[in-house]
Amino acid sequence: SGQSVNYSKFGKGLQFIAADSSFSVQMGLRFQVLYSGGQNLTPEQDWEDQFLIRRSRLKFSGFAYSPKLEYKVELGLSNRDIGGTLSEEQNFASNVILDAVAKWNFAKGWELFVGQTKLPGNRERLISSQQMQFVDRSLLNSRFNIDRDAGLQLHHEHTLGNVLVREITSISSGEGRNITADNAGGYDFTAKIEILPLGAFESSGEYVGSDIYREEKPKLAIAAAYDYNDDASRDRGQLGDYLSDTRDLRTFFADAMFKYKGFSAMAEYAHSQVEGTPVVSYTETGTVEEAFVTGEAFNIQAGYLFKSNWEVAGRFTTYDPTDATMRLPEDQYTLGVSRYIVGHSLKVQGDLTLQDTPAQDNTYQARVQMELAF
Amino acid sequence: SGQSVNYSKFGKGLQFIAADSSFSVQMGLRFQVLYSGGQNLTPEQDWEDQFLIRRSRLKFSGFAYSPKLEYKVELGLSNRDIGGTLSEEQNFASNVILDAVAKWNFAKGWELFVGQTKLPGNRERLISSQQMQFVDRSLLNSRFNIDRDAGLQLHHEHTLGNVLVREITSISSGEGRNITADNAGGYDFTAKIEILPLGAFESSGEYVGSDIYREEKPKLAIAAAYDYNDDASRDRGQLGDYLSDTRDLRTFFADAMFKYKGFSAMAEYAHSQVEGTPVVSYTETGTVEEAFVTGEAFNIQAGYLFKSNWEVAGRFTTYDPTDATMRLPEDQYTLGVSRYIVGHSLKVQGDLTLQDTPAQDNTYQARVQMELAF
Amino acid sequence: SGQSVNYSKFGKGLQFIAADSSFSVQMGLRFQVLYSGGQNLTPEQDWEDQFLIRRSRLKFSGFAYSPKLEYKVELGLSNRDIGGTLSEEQNFASNVILDAVAKWNFAKGWELFVGQTKLPGNRERLISSQQMQFVDRSLLNSRFNIDRDAGLQLHHEHTLGNVLVREITSISSGEGRNITADNAGGYDFTAKIEILPLGAFESSGEYVGSDIYREEKPKLAIAAAYDYNDDASRDRGQLGDYLSDTRDLRTFFADAMFKYKGFSAMAEYAHSQVEGTPVVSYTETGTVEEAFVTGEAFNIQAGYLFKSNWEVAGRFTTYDPTDATMRLPEDQYTLGVSRYIVGHSLKVQGDLTLQDTPAQDNTYQARVQMELAF
Repeated sequence: SGQSVNYSKFGKGLQFIAADSSFSVQMGLRFQVLYSGGQNLTPEQDWEDQFLIRRSRLKFSGFAYSPKLEYKVELGLSNRDIGGTLSEEQNFASNVILDAVAKWNFAKGWELFVGQTKLPGNRERLISSQQMQFVDRSLLNSRFNIDRDAGLQLHHEHTLGNVLVREITSISSGEGRNITADNAGGYDFTAKIEILPLGAFESSGEYVGSDIYREEKPKLAIAAAYDYNDDASRDRGQLGDYLSDTRDLRTFFADAMFKYKGFSAMAEYAHSQVEGTPVVSYTETGTVEEAFVTGEAFNIQAGYLFKSNWEVAGRFTTYDPTDATMRLPEDQYTLGVSRYIVGHSLKVQGDLTLQDTPAQDNTYQARVQMELAF
Repeated sequence: SGQSVNYSKFGKGLQFIAADSSFSVQMGLRFQVLYSGGQNLTPEQDWEDQFLIRRSRLKFSGFAYSPKLEYKVELGLSNRDIGGTLSEEQNFASNVILDAVAKWNFAKGWELFVGQTKLPGNRERLISSQQMQFVDRSLLNSRFNIDRDAGLQLHHEHTLGNVLVREITSISSGEGRNITADNAGGYDFTAKIEILPLGAFESSGEYVGSDIYREEKPKLAIAAAYDYNDDASRDRGQLGDYLSDTRDLRTFFADAMFKYKGFSAMAEYAHSQVEGTPVVSYTETGTVEEAFVTGEAFNIQAGYLFKSNWEVAGRFTTYDPTDATMRLPEDQYTLGVSRYIVGHSLKVQGDLTLQDTPAQDNTYQARVQMELAF
Repeated sequence: SGQSVNYSKFGKGLQFIAADSSFSVQMGLRFQVLYSGGQNLTPEQDWEDQFLIRRSRLKFSGFAYSPKLEYKVELGLSNRDIGGTLSEEQNFASNVILDAVAKWNFAKGWELFVGQTKLPGNRERLISSQQMQFVDRSLLNSRFNIDRDAGLQLHHEHTLGNVLVREITSISSGEGRNITADNAGGYDFTAKIEILPLGAFESSGEYVGSDIYREEKPKLAIAAAYDYNDDASRDRGQLGDYLSDTRDLRTFFADAMFKYKGFSAMAEYAHSQVEGTPVVSYTETGTVEEAFVTGEAFNIQAGYLFKSNWEVAGRFTTYDPTDATMRLPEDQYTLGVSRYIVGHSLKVQGDLTLQDTPAQDNTYQARVQMELAF
């Protein structure tokens, strides 16, 4: 008496179920406080830094009418989440909605997604920004991920003996989240297959950074995805600037996640190309003015979670843009230290990155971030 | 044990009441996923389409301190809800707030509304976008509705025998929702009367699309409303572009809703005019550059809800703008099919519209929409 | 049975605690409906007015994992809360987040704040906009308050006999809330000391307008704060326009609050200066184009809360800008009447202000505001 008890625990949100079991709601809130600083070392520049609310989200999920029909709505709150270029295509509004999707389990092993959510692309992108092993995702992801889109996704999951297999296809608008304008160019088509040859991870850990759940047996997930964005009009398909011409953008991803007794390793490869040249226009002096983001990248990272819930992790990313775009290749070396106080729901993470761009000066970046999520 | 039961049911939101009965909260969330496509048939054009989160809302309502004082706050989340032209009058912000209003039942049959909410205009507008019979409202509404405004409304409801009568008057700023600037021009005054000669509808069904509640006896609502927007500065009063001159905008609405055993019919008439010409400026070549949206429109729609909760409905809308505005008249014919899974809380609706503009090619539009609202 | 009881009461939000005591959530919502009008009397001008949702907020607070770690997230909803100039520094987004902060009670009497929240500046600013004695804060505050910022704050509270003493220091970015860009110029440093010589106020009433809790013994709080904004780039430090040059902005505050048996009095002094001239640029005709907001201001206000929960209060504010800025000094005289129905959670307040600017005509402003907060 005197306290309204909610049968949940920290990190699982407030949870409610209707008395007649006609719907359920899980409501969560999170925010990240980030300090980030960096500089060029030669010539020695000023230390440039920022301190900000990097992400903040309000999330609702549960089932509607039947446990076979689930929904998820995730709202962005921070200026980094909701801002960007104001465009007519997005109705000159802040982009509050991240996910608004219904998931219909219409037959055993099958789910149909209707609405806006992440496309079945690379693993790093599908791992929630709350559950990352480092302060933020890698350069591979920032160049080539296919983000969120509005459309339909068909998910299938089945087992072959102990082997878990998932096939996913999707059709979507192709211009990314919160577009209110008519579809520009053609649709986007994605296909993905994922195999877990050693069986299911604890708590879907194949989409969680770090071996938080300390797998007692080795677990492995490998996946490949292919995305065809017909007549893409933004330079990274679902993301980036609108260009003055379109291209058919084709992106291939392959990735793997391995976990065992506190050790985790993840590797990803991405390759993006268009038919013909990715360059759409040049300036009068012959430099590239507009170009699609094409090329390839590879990312590998691994970490060990000590029993004290401290983790040390390392990451190497190499990015090789298509020559014609005149963009510069880049290698990044990151060392991360994390203290998981309550898993990914309350943690402090720091990382140090060396950015090595050929023919340019190396850059260092240091970051510390706190995550709090109920 | 182990589950936090909420004494609500799907479609009614999470519900809470304070232990000392000092306030209550009903909290709901909804989103619509829309596919919409269309084309001209002669000359045959490309199919233009879009797939988007059409609306998404977070709603809070309940009573504060006393059941005689109710509140409602409804927040828009989707870019279609919150975007539009960025204007200084709205402080260059996304327009998140739809409703923020207190409703004070200060005497039996009387309510005073203080804040921002829908004005007492046409029925179609007052029906929630969650509870429409078709995928979206008609052309009559898009041209002539008086939307939301900040101000005061006085509501009175009483019975004369079995006849239910409502009178409503309001005074408001006249420029629509979320204006932060000083009132432009004069105020807006609205008066409305509504009569239900056959008694109350089940669950206020006179403001619900389709005969979801299957009235056992015939029920009828008829209403008339008049709005006087003194020195209106936006081309549709509470909505639209700011023009370079003002007009006194007068809008008259008459509407009716009939329901009986699954059959429902709704008719609306709207007439909008200004003194003198609605045209504010012409281009050098003599075409209209700026004009208020005046003229008249008529909408009639009817549907039958089968016992299977499938509905077939038809709609005819005719729009006749004032000649001086050089806008084109338009007729629309819509055929709708709806599958109500849980009333208006979980449904899929489709409709097909033929748009007939004299002296122009006919246009077709096809839409499918899913609504999910807890 | 049949109702989900929440062990809270009106004004305290919905309250939840996890069954395993691993976190708690208090969730509140509020909105203010404001009518404000004003005019010059000589020459007699038109009455200019507005009616709007002045503020609306959604708030979450509680503890995370341990009662020693508290969090607060406060979101703005109204266009006045979230709008303003769209800037690249804020990622062209509406500014939804007001507070997103973790408060770690790491040792007895000590708290470390991490994130974005109000800086330890003047008392009037630290009093919630829900708990003001008048319809809004004074002219002193609008000119000189240091608002919110992202960074770290260290709070210490201890007693010396019956005397309560608080020391606070902070380091923050210096450009205000929701900045996503690299820190412009240098950091901001704040130090504050507060003394309550007569012991603690009821329910932290030293940060509540009006003697709502009717102190039975005299209570006094006095405080002084100093803020050093290194290389400030906005004209009021955390607020205002970005100027074309920076200045080290130094602001000093001193304030006091006294309460006894329904009587309350608050006084504040603010002084802001830069080294050299606050003027950054002049127009060709020699008038000031860009200047930091410097100078000094004094505000004093007092009110008496009758047993009927009606209050009458008066306020005098004088603002004296630095001569070089060519801004005009101003005196304001305000008379306020408030009816607290449920403290600051449900109230109606009105005030009348005479604005006296030397060498200009006097201006009058009348305001009425309703606050509803659960």
